[in-house]
Amino acid sequence: MSVQWFPEEKVLKDPIHDWVYIQDPMIWNLINTKAFQRLRRIKQLGTSYLVFHGAEHSRLTHSLGTYETMRKLLSHFRRNHDWPKEERVSKLALCAALLHDIGHGPFSHAFEGAFQTHHETWTRRILLEDEEINRILSAVDADFPRDVAGVIGKEDSFPLVVRIISSQLDVDRMDYLLRDALHTGVIYGQYELERLIRVMRPFQNDIVIKSSGIHTLEQYILARYFMYTQVYLHHKTIGSDLLLRSVMLRAKTLFHENRLRFHPVELLPFFSREETDILVAEYLRIDEPVMIHAFQRWRDEEDPILSDLASRFLDRRLYASIACDKLSEETLSTLRDMFSTRGLDPEYYLIYQEIATAGFLYKEGIRVLDEQGKLQEIHEMSNLIRSLVPEIKYRLYYPKDKITLDGEFAPIVKKLQSLCSTD
Amino acid sequence: MSVQWFPEEKVLKDPIHDWVYIQDPMIWNLINTKAFQRLRRIKQLGTSYLVFHGAEHSRLTHSLGTYETMRKLLSHFRRNHDWPKEERVSKLALCAALLHDIGHGPFSHAFEGAFQTHHETWTRRILLEDEEINRILSAVDADFPRDVAGVIGKEDSFPLVVRIISSQLDVDRMDYLLRDALHTGVIYGQYELERLIRVMRPFQNDIVIKSSGIHTLEQYILARYFMYTQVYLHHKTIGSDLLLRSVMLRAKTLFHENRLRFHPVELLPFFSREETDILVAEYLRIDEPVMIHAFQRWRDEEDPILSDLASRFLDRRLYASIACDKLSEETLSTLRDMFSTRGLDPEYYLIYQEIATAGFLYKEGIRVLDEQGKLQEIHEMSNLIRSLVPEIKYRLYYPKDKITLDGEFAPIVKKLQSLCSTD
Amino acid sequence: MSVQWFPEEKVLKDPIHDWVYIQDPMIWNLINTKAFQRLRRIKQLGTSYLVFHGAEHSRLTHSLGTYETMRKLLSHFRRNHDWPKEERVSKLALCAALLHDIGHGPFSHAFEGAFQTHHETWTRRILLEDEEINRILSAVDADFPRDVAGVIGKEDSFPLVVRIISSQLDVDRMDYLLRDALHTGVIYGQYELERLIRVMRPFQNDIVIKSSGIHTLEQYILARYFMYTQVYLHHKTIGSDLLLRSVMLRAKTLFHENRLRFHPVELLPFFSREETDILVAEYLRIDEPVMIHAFQRWRDEEDPILSDLASRFLDRRLYASIACDKLSEETLSTLRDMFSTRGLDPEYYLIYQEIATAGFLYKEGIRVLDEQGKLQEIHEMSNLIRSLVPEIKYRLYYPKDKITLDGEFAPIVKKLQSLCSTD
Amino acid sequence: MSVQWFPEEKVLKDPIHDWVYIQDPMIWNLINTKAFQRLRRIKQLGTSYLVFHGAEHSRLTHSLGTYETMRKLLSHFRRNHDWPKEERVSKLALCAALLHDIGHGPFSHAFEGAFQTHHETWTRRILLEDEEINRILSAVDADFPRDVAGVIGKEDSFPLVVRIISSQLDVDRMDYLLRDALHTGVIYGQYELERLIRVMRPFQNDIVIKSSGIHTLEQYILARYFMYTQVYLHHKTIGSDLLLRSVMLRAKTLFHENRLRFHPVELLPFFSREETDILVAEYLRIDEPVMIHAFQRWRDEEDPILSDLASRFLDRRLYASIACDKLSEETLSTLRDMFSTRGLDPEYYLIYQEIATAGFLYKEGIRVLDEQGKLQEIHEMSNLIRSLVPEIKYRLYYPKDKITLDGEFAPIVKKLQSLCSTD
Repeated sequence: MSVQWFPEEKVLKDPIHDWVYIQDPMIWNLINTKAFQRLRRIKQLGTSYLVFHGAEHSRLTHSLGTYETMRKLLSHFRRNHDWPKEERVSKLALCAALLHDIGHGPFSHAFEGAFQTHHETWTRRILLEDEEINRILSAVDADFPRDVAGVIGKEDSFPLVVRIISSQLDVDRMDYLLRDALHTGVIYGQYELERLIRVMRPFQNDIVIKSSGIHTLEQYILARYFMYTQVYLHHKTIGSDLLLRSVMLRAKTLFHENRLRFHPVELLPFFSREETDILVAEYLRIDEPVMIHAFQRWRDEEDPILSDLASRFLDRRLYASIACDKLSEETLSTLRDMFSTRGLDPEYYLIYQEIATAGFLYKEGIRVLDEQGKLQEIHEMSNLIRSLVPEIKYRLYYPKDKITLDGEFAPIVKKLQSLCSTD
Repeated sequence: MSVQWFPEEKVLKDPIHDWVYIQDPMIWNLINTKAFQRLRRIKQLGTSYLVFHGAEHSRLTHSLGTYETMRKLLSHFRRNHDWPKEERVSKLALCAALLHDIGHGPFSHAFEGAFQTHHETWTRRILLEDEEINRILSAVDADFPRDVAGVIGKEDSFPLVVRIISSQLDVDRMDYLLRDALHTGVIYGQYELERLIRVMRPFQNDIVIKSSGIHTLEQYILARYFMYTQVYLHHKTIGSDLLLRSVMLRAKTLFHENRLRFHPVELLPFFSREETDILVAEYLRIDEPVMIHAFQRWRDEEDPILSDLASRFLDRRLYASIACDKLSEETLSTLRDMFSTRGLDPEYYLIYQEIATAGFLYKEGIRVLDEQGKLQEIHEMSNLIRSLVPEIKYRLYYPKDKITLDGEFAPIVKKLQSLCSTD
Repeated sequence: MSVQWFPEEKVLKDPIHDWVYIQDPMIWNLINTKAFQRLRRIKQLGTSYLVFHGAEHSRLTHSLGTYETMRKLLSHFRRNHDWPKEERVSKLALCAALLHDIGHGPFSHAFEGAFQTHHETWTRRILLEDEEINRILSAVDADFPRDVAGVIGKEDSFPLVVRIISSQLDVDRMDYLLRDALHTGVIYGQYELERLIRVMRPFQNDIVIKSSGIHTLEQYILARYFMYTQVYLHHKTIGSDLLLRSVMLRAKTLFHENRLRFHPVELLPFFSREETDILVAEYLRIDEPVMIHAFQRWRDEEDPILSDLASRFLDRRLYASIACDKLSEETLSTLRDMFSTRGLDPEYYLIYQEIATAGFLYKEGIRVLDEQGKLQEIHEMSNLIRSLVPEIKYRLYYPKDKITLDGEFAPIVKKLQSLCSTD
Repeated sequence: MSVQWFPEEKVLKDPIHDWVYIQDPMIWNLINTKAFQRLRRIKQLGTSYLVFHGAEHSRLTHSLGTYETMRKLLSHFRRNHDWPKEERVSKLALCAALLHDIGHGPFSHAFEGAFQTHHETWTRRILLEDEEINRILSAVDADFPRDVAGVIGKEDSFPLVVRIISSQLDVDRMDYLLRDALHTGVIYGQYELERLIRVMRPFQNDIVIKSSGIHTLEQYILARYFMYTQVYLHHKTIGSDLLLRSVMLRAKTLFHENRLRFHPVELLPFFSREETDILVAEYLRIDEPVMIHAFQRWRDEEDPILSDLASRFLDRRLYASIACDKLSEETLSTLRDMFSTRGLDPEYYLIYQEIATAGFLYKEGIRVLDEQGKLQEIHEMSNLIRSLVPEIKYRLYYPKDKITLDGEFAPIVKKLQSLCSTD
């Protein structure tokens, strides 16, 4: 493989990294594909913009930032550490960083919940089946697309690259914490990016941290903790996601009952087929404008539930919620009956939600290298990190405006108040 | 009018102002209207995100920021200067700041160009005709909606308020320079906001600048100059806007020729009626997702031009361009013929564009107050400001990929090269 | 007491708060006193600038920032909460914030260690005895100077004011974390100042935190943790302080042995008298330039130890150090003998130092107010905060350049290596 | 010359560049010299901290930043442009950047004015005569110290290196604009450093700007303009410098009249000898603490003028000033007589000062390279740059507190008022 660079680096202006540097024309070509440009039409933080109004940035900006973080990291490794000399390995790392989110659908998680799709599957399929992307990647060699997919899918072949693409300490998180912090306007996600890069080093097929960098690592792990507690798992954002899912579920139900009047062709495959029977070209046609436009139309549907839910989402009339303790099935059932009786379908108007931090906290996986060459899990070395234990919180979501304080709704109000967590 | 405040200020997190403070429930209610929430679906900088990938922020965020800038300014005026004591005047200023962009349509200028609409007209109509907005404003008094509209429309009744909403030195610009700078990632738009506020003061129905603030004012005016030359009038952004307009014009043409297969109901009024015959409710239904969804469909239209243009926009295959001198109608006509002959409709594939800075430069209007109480135009006092003279540049936009370097296109290439400005 | 304000606020430009606002002429007058201006000649972070080269800021800048933080906090309390209406209480809070560090001497802690002085004592004495300061404060009323001193000294009379001047959650820390972070160039000290202010509120003679502000509080407490581990207790800074103390102790010893040739008059009282016998006017004459100039002269002293130590400090040839476990007196004694034997006085050339974080960690004292009006210690509510347990580390400091690797020093090198902590 | 690098880069935390990277042990050794460490005791902005309280940073921090800017620039040139391959040229550039300010004395300009010294002379002498510095530089080769001195002194041998060390577009300014802006707290000095570096390129023994970078260059030149008008030539800073010079001149006068009681040995050579007769070792002994300590003592001198001036400086009781037109010698003479008559020596108490911007504005020297390879002066291309024409302002400085409004001083007050510029 001959290496060709641009005679002069291309650059893109970026609010986080100041500039994204592109030296390899292949990266430039990947950026200019239809599938990559589609990421402009998918927000990085789903419905968070309904709670933090600045969070309007797209997955494209984050993908460019992930690539740039990888580029900086590789540049550091090459100057100071023992990083594989083969150009192909670095190219693999850069491509995987750029394309790691290529398979995301509109409003990522809510859509996946409603339509049973999995972005990981689609990332792999796009790399292997999208003609444009696949052609560019295959120019390196026939195995290259599969290797990029393998790295993103955490397969074993290139463990070192896998580690920096997707692990407890990866370029994905390193970019999104800073980017999401900037756009939401909080400083919780900030940490010392350059210093973190400097204390990272390849060691025995792993990326480890130099012992003097422990506190920098703690700060990075805490940035994640704060972003989850303050932003990503903000109870109003969870509620926005639930509302969004409700809209889609209601539309799906009506579709199957032949009661949905407006169903954009782009959504048909998702209403009517299994994920495995959907084509890559079909998948790439859905994005957030398609969904939002559907919602606009569903505002005018005859079904009062869909019409109400779609309007709520578009006009930001979110569910209210109360914090509660874990509820028994019996309690829930009683509550649901109370809602049903009063004409509020509990499937859409009373949502009991567990909010578990377990998936978002640091888990084992980052090791610290001391001066004697000994490795130790950060978990064992840091009280702070050990203190981050999973929590589950519970909330009940419901439309406050539909429940008047007196009259027939008074018992519901009273019941909800009694369930309020004292915490 | 009795004044009621929230017992504790409400706040929204903002990437520019840190927090937006809301003390008056009326402001809160305006934010929660359907028409205001719609601004989330209209980008602040139109197609600039195709050139500066971070420029994905909406008009809603800027509207909140304009409100907050006004709130800070009024707070300063009240503490230190002679500002009208009537609560109604301040309320008027705050509402006008919040709602000044309420009438914008999708991709503001390009849409207006294609469909002959005027956002100023719609702002006024929404304030007076939208049931929700009008009801909230009318709660102050019957004249209030009209007064808000009057202030935004620069009518005479409240000259001091007009000055700070819409003039050479207004809260609109004060917010967007900083906000657009942050999101594009440049620092050109930065200036000393707090110091500018401190040197501004009401004086004889005008807002003037204290003489020690001259350089702060210069910096603010230059921030504007740099943002225009570097961002707003970036030749690629102009090209993106032209491409967008081409998509819409082509669709409109096909519609009138009955050759457009997909025309979303939301667009029908704009295809078929005059602006004055469109209802506010109809206007409020169009937004960028509606447009983008239409483009997605138009990708598949039979008409090769519309299909090509829509794909170009969605996949970011922008027009190329060359800087040229002012071209004679004859030269243009020759060029257009060359394009036509080779099957490229010059209406969509050869666009000659004047780029005039005149509309964006500082013009007269800001006066400086010296210690003796004498007023003088900043223009007369500052070489820097005087040096900002209007310029007109010319560019030819065309699709580079459709013009191969040899064969039948060689003459076009040669002709274009000969027109390249030596500047 | 009649309240008089400046007709227009005075402002000072500040790198942290953008502007420091001064509305009360009394504050202006205090800033312009000789004793306050002297704080320009005392660095905020002592010898930290030898490790973080940007940490060159003075106690004056921090004092202004503490005042400004207080001003912002009071403004918030007055707008939104139940804060005492008497102007005198707010004035007390502002003066105490401005003057809380007025008694600091050169290189704060190292000087106090060498000369047995206490800055708290001097703060009180300056407020009560310095003619200029006392006159300005007494203009409020005869008790005012004593009340300011009482608040800074944590006396009981104004518990609410004491809480915001000096507690686990005070304006002093709120300013210095941000300021020290900026100048050292780290982001560890950053937290959400405006949000912290917004979740603070006066409640039953205490300042408490609104329950939704728990994570903001956690972030603030962690900012402190990180600044201590990364900056304030950096092992090289500790070493710089030890070196500085050695210079002063050696000079003192020589003075008492009549072997010190150069002793500036300003230092005489400190060499020869008890703290209680020193006059305020004498105390105010010592500052860092006086000390540094003495060091310059001591470079040329006949005593080789003083000459060496002074040169080391001025030219930044710091002690080296090794991390070790807690050492027995016997081990230390052996080591000291080894140093003595080879002509290195262990009092100055072998310093065994405990570095205890206990004094710097969050201790009990901040309570969170939930919506039911119940108070709970943050300690009980947050795993993170509970995880911050005191630690003691041990280091041996010595001049590496005086210990050659072979020859007579080889046994010392071997011994030191054997003591190296494996941690 | 064999090139040796640190196995892993050393870094220093920096508030402007985040980190200063040191790869070459020689740079590390230069930083650790006595002469370089002395720069910690000389402020970057002289007396500006008396006006902008945050401006307390030293010449050492700026010297490190200039080095780092050079390092970034060379890294860019080597990756993308035609930069000399010889390691010696780059080493020369890095050393010259690091050491360009090594010859500065205390309070740079004011000291030079009072004692007729020239920092350029001392920079050269230190490089050639200081044993420590010279030994490190000579390790490259015998000519190296002279070449470094030559580059800093703008000699012809290495024109390209001279250009980036000292010209209208040099790493010195590129660092100090950003650094001084941060510490003073203004944003006037900010410009796009990374983009400026990217549009700079070596071309025919000059550093030129790529034509698309014109506005970036304008922004950089304006940053300089704003910093001069707002910070460096702030009338109060000029006044602080004049006061400082008055202290030194008065002391010198008293010394020659045998009336100065306290004269630190460090200052003797400067009181009694010509610059050429002073040794490098003597020069390196003076720094700001030495001066400040002298001022402390001079507070207590018998001479009332010196005592007053020294107290004023230490306690920040600056001269007041009025803006005036150019004054005739006659007017000045009359005024001086009025001061003398009333016991105020006009040499120290009435200072008429021209403030000329000519030395600080952009002058010719930066050329822009267009795509055809043609060079053009930025001056000819930019209205903005051309608008920056030299100005001279005039001010009268005097001690306001010594001039009571009535009684014998009334005529002075009246006279001063009559001279007030109406501008």
